[in-house]
Formats: sequence, structure tokens, C-alpha cells
Amino acid sequence: MNSWHSSRADRGAHRLANCLQATVISIADVRRAADSLRSVAGATPVLTSRTLDRRTGAELFLKAELFQRSGSFKFRGAYSRISSLSARQRSRGVVAYSSGNHAQAVALAASLLGSKAVILMPRDAPAGKVAATRSYGAEVIEYDRYGEERETLASGLAEERELVLVPPYDDAHVMAGQGTVGLELVEHIGDLDDLVVPVGGGGLIAGCATAAKSLLPRIRVVGVEPASGDDTRRSLERGERAAIPVPRTIADGLQVATPGEMTFEVNRRLVDGIVTVTDEEIVGAMAFLFERMKIVVEPSGAVAVAALLAEKLDVSGRRVGAILSGGNVDLRRFQELLA
Amino acid sequence: MNSWHSSRADRGAHRLANCLQATVISIADVRRAADSLRSVAGATPVLTSRTLDRRTGAELFLKAELFQRSGSFKFRGAYSRISSLSARQRSRGVVAYSSGNHAQAVALAASLLGSKAVILMPRDAPAGKVAATRSYGAEVIEYDRYGEERETLASGLAEERELVLVPPYDDAHVMAGQGTVGLELVEHIGDLDDLVVPVGGGGLIAGCATAAKSLLPRIRVVGVEPASGDDTRRSLERGERAAIPVPRTIADGLQVATPGEMTFEVNRRLVDGIVTVTDEEIVGAMAFLFERMKIVVEPSGAVAVAALLAEKLDVSGRRVGAILSGGNVDLRRFQELLA
Repeated sequence: MNSWHSSRADRGAHRLANCLQATVISIADVRRAADSLRSVAGATPVLTSRTLDRRTGAELFLKAELFQRSGSFKFRGAYSRISSLSARQRSRGVVAYSSGNHAQAVALAASLLGSKAVILMPRDAPAGKVAATRSYGAEVIEYDRYGEERETLASGLAEERELVLVPPYDDAHVMAGQGTVGLELVEHIGDLDDLVVPVGGGGLIAGCATAAKSLLPRIRVVGVEPASGDDTRRSLERGERAAIPVPRTIADGLQVATPGEMTFEVNRRLVDGIVTVTDEEIVGAMAFLFERMKIVVEPSGAVAVAALLAEKLDVSGRRVGAILSGGNVDLRRFQELLA
Repeated sequence: MNSWHSSRADRGAHRLANCLQATVISIADVRRAADSLRSVAGATPVLTSRTLDRRTGAELFLKAELFQRSGSFKFRGAYSRISSLSARQRSRGVVAYSSGNHAQAVALAASLLGSKAVILMPRDAPAGKVAATRSYGAEVIEYDRYGEERETLASGLAEERELVLVPPYDDAHVMAGQGTVGLELVEHIGDLDDLVVPVGGGGLIAGCATAAKSLLPRIRVVGVEPASGDDTRRSLERGERAAIPVPRTIADGLQVATPGEMTFEVNRRLVDGIVTVTDEEIVGAMAFLFERMKIVVEPSGAVAVAALLAEKLDVSGRRVGAILSGGNVDLRRFQELLA
């Protein structure tokens, strides 16, 4: 694993060698992350639906990360990153910026690992998310979304207080941790023809593709982006990272303007394609998941099922894994979206 | 098992002996029902929540029948009843009356068992429920809720077409089938101090209490009724079946005016107490289950958690099983209730 965020000198040579390898992370990294997560994050269930199979003509297996601790897959990456720190680093603490799932994930992971988290959240973040983050024991520092650069603020804080930054996706430990979703799904279900994964910064699909393609070399890995936020689709087409304006979409976890450097390095090798879905298709999938499957999935978490229901990829007769990445949508927001 | 709905003469003597026994059904009946269900109804998951444990001071295990086929526990009873019929009876078909979960459950069970179902539904039943019932292949006959007696209509149909009536609760096979919920929960979780169960006609709690008390003689079995529909509470107090006006409550599956004869016979022996919840407490529980546990539970299905959150019974320091009996609430109704 490329661990350039780590400061332990004694592993330097090993790391340098890894940096030069073609892949940024390997199945071994994902397995290590799975080992460290085993005692804290129960394997989430894999759900099936006869109705969904009938509608798509496929055999679908939905990995339900909405039941993950902190309500999304983000916990896996945050925990993997923080558990890789030295005791001294952990005692000084970690810092992250997020208005969403990564905030709660880092706060919870830090508290479980005896560390302290400082989370930068925009002043206009939903009160519920701020409260949830604080309830895990994190210190929340608010900033002005329109006036201050969060990356600069975070680096400043990290330096000043000697905190380690926990990035939301562009980090080898984070990708490996997020990849345990795909590892578990393949280990649980066995042979799959396709794996369909939501794409924001690209950490989830990078980790999952690494695990899935190692175990099932012929699997097709397809990402799903919001139609207005197809930065990874464009980047894969061009063969280099493209930037778009911050997308307007209800899928707030996927509002990313450009792929991560490390995630793109993995994804340009392992991802077979990207399809996109509209906000309307996302809402339709959320309603289907509510009424037919009795589960609450947030907009970003529903894009894979949205793509399947809208027939954005041909899966007829295939065994398909799809990731429901999270369920953090409060009642009021849910009501507004599905009104 | 008391099988007075069956027509097979060769088991008559055996049955008569059973009728005279103190209990109407036994753990052996529940186990037989579990065997017949094994290939068609996957065991539903048992969910836990750290937040719920913190709020109640107990260790809670929620049996999630919202994930059951047809969306509620009713499938278990309907399937058990229909699978007990002779091939000839099955080929002639079954009849049931219901505007809710029992309709879909009987329709699905009949279709799986190669039988035909005729379902009497009130003319003003929600279009979605009528469509769901028809989608399982049932013939739906509408009647005027305010002008016609559904029991009389059903008996008339049963006689005229030689159909077997599948009652929603007051039947030994139905109770035994519904009791498999409790059997599975105890087999899955092991020792429990309490079992908290929604009470309508009393079939679910009768079957579950039979299974649970046989395996764990010291378990406390507590029923939950809507505050306005406490017919079983009153009946247990009096020691005989009491009747109340049809209750007005959002828990439409629990709008029962008097306990079943057979269910009450079981429940007066095995149920340790009844607590009641208001509609407001039910809505609060539905919101909690949505936001914290990411699951969709219908009003009737949420009463056990409502009672626990509202501290209607002291469970501090105890291991408590609770049944989430179903998830059939459509999006529009859900929005209205939680507005």
C-alpha cells in the first residue's frame, strides 16, 4: 500500500517500492483493512428482491451499507485510516472536512480508536448532521462555505495542532477500507458478472474494483454518477483527470468536481465504464427501495439502483452486485425529495 | 393442534383429544409450521441499534418481519394454513377477507401452493393494496364496507364455490405459522428476558408466546395495543373476551374490536401483560426507525418499539426481543402520517 500519509520512517523503502508499482492498492491491502474492521463493523446484509429481478431481468444482490455504522460506507475508510496511525499520532488526533457522511464516519472511528477528531463543517450544514458529529465526541469547527478554503483551513489546523488529515477518498488506507464493501459482497455471494457502484471522488469504486477484479478477473465494474456530475466519466474518456463545475444534484455525496489523483490512477485501469442518472431517476429509485424493499436510502446511495431501473446498462440474464452506499437522509429532506 | 377447519376424518379422534387439552397449540405445531415454511420464507433478520439500547437501557433485538414475503408476518400464517389443506381442497381454492396485509399474504401463499385465492376487499380499499393482491394472481371481489357483512359474504362464497376460509388469526394453523416469528427469534438470539409483540386479533402473540415460553419458561411476554383499541387488555383483566367499538387508530392492522376465541384461549394463559401506545407515540417510533435504523415500518408494526421508546414497560438491564410485524405503508400514507 502506498502510505505517503504515514510518517513511520522504517517502512520507507518498502513504500517507495510500492509507489512505483502499477497499482496503488492491492487485494492484500483490502484484506488487511477487512481484518482491522472485523471486530467493529459487522458485515452488512446483502438484500435481494424478486420484483427488482423481474424489472431488470437480472439476478441482483444489493450490498446494504445504509446499515453500516454511522449510516454509510464512509466508516470503513475512516476507521482503516485512523487505525493505521501510530499511538502517538492517534493521541494527538485527526482532522477532516465534510458536511456529510465523512464527518460522522471520522468522528465515530476516532472515538472508537481512542483518538480525537476535529471536523471542519460549513456554517450552513444541517443542524442534525452537526449534532450527530458532535454526539460521537468530535470537536466541530464551523467555517464559511463561501469565504474560506476548507483545504487550507484543514492544513493549517493539522500543522498547528499536529493532527493527521483523514481525506474522504484520496488515500490508500481509505480506498482499501472502502474496498472491503466489494470484498465482503464477493465473498458472500460468489460469482458475479457485474458490480455497479456509486462514484463521487472514486474511493469506493477504486477499492471495490481492486477487490472484485482480483477475485473475479472477468467481472465488469461499472460506476454511476449523477448526470450533472460526470467528472469521472469525462476523465476516463480523456484518459486524464477532468474538472467540471461543482455539480448541482440531489446526490449530495457525489458533488465532486474532479476525481482524486490516487483514485483515478486505480479507476482508469479497473473501471469498465460509467453510466449517469438524473435526479428524477434517483428519486424513483428511492421510492422503489422504500415501498418495495422497506429501506431508507439517501440520494447518493440510490444511484446504482436508479441506473438499473432506468436500464442504463444491459444486465439481462446476469448476476449483478450493486452497492447501496448509505442511508443518511433525514425525514424532512426525504419528504421534500419525494413529495 | 386443534384443526377444526380440517375435514379429514381419520384424524378426528386425535384432534378431539387435543381440543380437550389445556393449550390450543403447542411448540410442536409451531415447529411443524416452521418446517413447511423453510423453503419459501427466508428467516428475517434480527436488527440491533446502539441508540435504541442507550435510550431504553436494555439490549434489544428487533425481529424484522417487514422483510418477510408480502411485507408482513401474515404470510407465515396464511402459508401454514393453506399448506395444511388436502390437494383437493387446494385445487378448489381458498377465500379470505381483508383490506390489508392478510389479503396479500393469502394471495401470495395460495399462488405458491398452486391454489387459487378469492379475496373480499372493501370497495374503498387503497388501490395499491388491491393491485398488489391481484398481482399475486388472486381474484378480488369488492364489497360495500358499510352495507354488507364480510363474514357472511365470505361464508356464502365458501359454501357456494367449496372454498376453504383462511381466517386472519383465529385458527390453529395460522397461529402456529405466525408463532414461527417467535421461534426463529429465540433460536437466533438465545436467552431473552422479555418478548414484546403487537396485538390485533392476537394470533401473532399467541403463536410467539407458545414458542417462546416452551423454550424459555421464564420469559415475560408483553403485548402492545393501540390506546383506543385495548380489547385484549380489557379481556385479560376481566378473564373473558370483551368487545369495544372498532378502534380509531393509525395502526390499521390492529383495528380489532374483540380478541379471537382461540387466540384468547392461548393468550389468557401465556401473556403476562398488555401495554398501550398512542398514535403520536407510534409516529415517533416510525420516525426513529426511519432515521436511525433506515427501515420502513408501518404503524401497526411499530407499536412494540413505540412502547419501548415511551418507557411503557421497565426493561432496564434486560435482554428484550421485539417484533416489527410489517412494513406495508405506501409512500403517500407515510408522508401524511409523518408530516
